[in-house]
Amino acid sequence: MTQIIDGKKIAHEVLTECESEIAELKQQGITPGLAVVLVGEDPASKVYVNSKVKKCSELGLHSEKIVLSKDATQEEVLAVVTRLNEDDAIHGILVQSPPPPQIDEEAIVRAIDPAKDVDGFHPENVAKLALEDSTGFVPCTPAGCMRLLQASGIETSGAEAVVVGRSMIVGKPMALLLMARGSDATVTVAHSRTKDLVEVCRRADIIIAAIGKPEFLTADFVKDGATVIDVGINRVEDPSTKKGYRLCGDVSYEEVAAKAHAMTPVPGGVGPMTIAMLIKNTIKAARQRGELL
Amino acid sequence: MTQIIDGKKIAHEVLTECESEIAELKQQGITPGLAVVLVGEDPASKVYVNSKVKKCSELGLHSEKIVLSKDATQEEVLAVVTRLNEDDAIHGILVQSPPPPQIDEEAIVRAIDPAKDVDGFHPENVAKLALEDSTGFVPCTPAGCMRLLQASGIETSGAEAVVVGRSMIVGKPMALLLMARGSDATVTVAHSRTKDLVEVCRRADIIIAAIGKPEFLTADFVKDGATVIDVGINRVEDPSTKKGYRLCGDVSYEEVAAKAHAMTPVPGGVGPMTIAMLIKNTIKAARQRGELL
Repeated sequence: MTQIIDGKKIAHEVLTECESEIAELKQQGITPGLAVVLVGEDPASKVYVNSKVKKCSELGLHSEKIVLSKDATQEEVLAVVTRLNEDDAIHGILVQSPPPPQIDEEAIVRAIDPAKDVDGFHPENVAKLALEDSTGFVPCTPAGCMRLLQASGIETSGAEAVVVGRSMIVGKPMALLLMARGSDATVTVAHSRTKDLVEVCRRADIIIAAIGKPEFLTADFVKDGATVIDVGINRVEDPSTKKGYRLCGDVSYEEVAAKAHAMTPVPGGVGPMTIAMLIKNTIKAARQRGELL
Repeated sequence: MTQIIDGKKIAHEVLTECESEIAELKQQGITPGLAVVLVGEDPASKVYVNSKVKKCSELGLHSEKIVLSKDATQEEVLAVVTRLNEDDAIHGILVQSPPPPQIDEEAIVRAIDPAKDVDGFHPENVAKLALEDSTGFVPCTPAGCMRLLQASGIETSGAEAVVVGRSMIVGKPMALLLMARGSDATVTVAHSRTKDLVEVCRRADIIIAAIGKPEFLTADFVKDGATVIDVGINRVEDPSTKKGYRLCGDVSYEEVAAKAHAMTPVPGGVGPMTIAMLIKNTIKAARQRGELL
């Protein structure tokens, strides 16, 4: 029987932990606060931002949603970030990606106080991840994947892990987390230039698929008994559905499920973990700020 | 016939390049300057520092050697770093590792201006390496290994590379360099917790051995026709020699040479590249500073 890794359930467990951590901080007079900055009106970004803010309010976190026009200048976005850096009620700052083309996203990320960079994309936090400095913030998606493995009893120590994808959002941080002391996996990073991807993936006890191609990873990529974490989330046309499309991951779910020991569905796998880890990072930021005062 | 990768010859080529770059910078009124700080009297550190300073002087670089007593305080070392950060004649700063135990090495590294951090250990440069930002400084040993591969015509794109060791000095930066766009290797990082290291290494087209155990990597770890880069440098007792010891790498040279397509000797492989890449980084620092003015 394949173990279906239930991201909704595990995210709920993380958020339950968060609730007691928030209660504890409030007793010390600290209400963790998250600011989410949205530039423009990308519909998907709007949905993401609103669900983040909603989750904060459910948990009793302070949150602010700052919406700038799609014509906002770099200086206007930087001014908002600067104000939030200085705002003692705000412990975490997130500028929703992608911003409109006139915005230099990298410069915006660098402008965020690294101690408030709950997305974990500031160079200071990138370095802390590589240096295994636990005071840093780990990007939410790979952090969520690690938590899924732990919660599902998947042993990483000595395991062969293959990460497919080498982005700084998922692939590289995922590889760094898996190879770090304590996780101790033997990690391979594969990508578009990998020669025999099927063979490389078939070695894996744990596959992290962050490819961005719908249902790309078929059963022949997967060793019997492997664990497969599907980071992908793709829309594919499907006239049989009301909306005309359906969501799927980077993994061919049915056929891989027949071989894997454990795997995540899409939706309901990695997705729900992202917001949970964002809240977790915001609480960590508030606690670390509290300790500094 | 195994290709013996001649580190002395390739380092000489790098330094010849450096000579013309230095001449060019001098025409613009810039003399690249390197400051090497030595705290205490560790004999090996003394040798390293002196050879770095000597190489600078041979090439017409400005260099300074600052020697602090083995009882120097953290504040004294920091004061030297601060002075060097502000010194316009100095483009590269290196504090020789390891310092005496009363010194917090990490704090010293963080105090160095990242634009002068020619060792590439400042978090800002660690992040730039992960983010594939070419304005950063890459640590000298992994940078030297990459140059050895390039100079020897070893194709990294699509190759299976196995890095044995996960330190921030060699293993992790090596892995990040090999997987970066342009290098495009499929990279596995193996380490002390790797279960079947022999099997993992036997997959490799390129092995980078940074283990720290004399002659650990024997022929059975190596696929026929692989390239083996030996980062190790170990002293082993040898009563048959005058000094009572000999130097060897992490690889069993004779038996691996019989199988490999190409490999580095120890000494004379990776070792000579380190100073060459340090000089290269110092020139880069001077050029980037010049462009800013």
